[in-house]
Amino acid sequence: MKKIEHIGIAVEDLEASEKLFGALFDVSPYKRELVEAQEVLTSFLRVGNNKIELLQATSDDSVIKKFIDKKGPGFHHIAFGVTDLISEMARLKKAGYRLLQESPSEGADNKLVCFLHPKSTGGVLVELVQEKP
Amino acid sequence: MKKIEHIGIAVEDLEASEKLFGALFDVSPYKRELVEAQEVLTSFLRVGNNKIELLQATSDDSVIKKFIDKKGPGFHHIAFGVTDLISEMARLKKAGYRLLQESPSEGADNKLVCFLHPKSTGGVLVELVQEKP
Repeated sequence: MKKIEHIGIAVEDLEASEKLFGALFDVSPYKRELVEAQEVLTSFLRVGNNKIELLQATSDDSVIKKFIDKKGPGFHHIAFGVTDLISEMARLKKAGYRLLQESPSEGADNKLVCFLHPKSTGGVLVELVQEKP
Repeated sequence: MKKIEHIGIAVEDLEASEKLFGALFDVSPYKRELVEAQEVLTSFLRVGNNKIELLQATSDDSVIKKFIDKKGPGFHHIAFGVTDLISEMARLKKAGYRLLQESPSEGADNKLVCFLHPKSTGGVLVELVQEKP
């Protein structure tokens, strides 16, 4: 994998969190995007070469709502940028990591994505992301 | 703040986790370091321009032991590199963020560090790090 593409943070109130993390990192959020498939509204901040993605649930069925109900707001996932998602999924599956999906899905920010099960990655929810061709 | 310096991950078994995350990121851990003040043994992996710091408790009093007992292994903190830790601490304190310490302490990897209380940073444990002069 070539780099940490972004860190995802589950938040309860996107607007308040944009202010909180914006002031913390001394940067401004530069983009909001609705990811309908995952029922989340996202907001991005740039910190150096990385991005922080704030995630707010848009429905009670959203994975972010369930996550916050269980663990509270905070770290949600870490996303790694890869150049060939399909081959990286195959490499990790072969190495014994558990994929949460058989094929890539649409993510925010013009990406194809695949999540790994945190049970197979030390409790860390890992997302692989590839820029869409 | 200029960049994400590293992501800290709490682990139960450092050696197994070095293998797990090493294979995941397709890199080798390059350094282990004992941080006596925090009773943790750390191991570092480089992913792109960032580092992953694996943290294993060295005693039952370690903050990492308490963290894992409460939340399980996984994301522990995110560290931001700053050029002037003292002035950054003052800026954040003035802005209403809660510092977990009044003055910098010694961290791993030749750094001076300061932690912020997750209650004031959306549930995310934030560490500020400055390269030691």
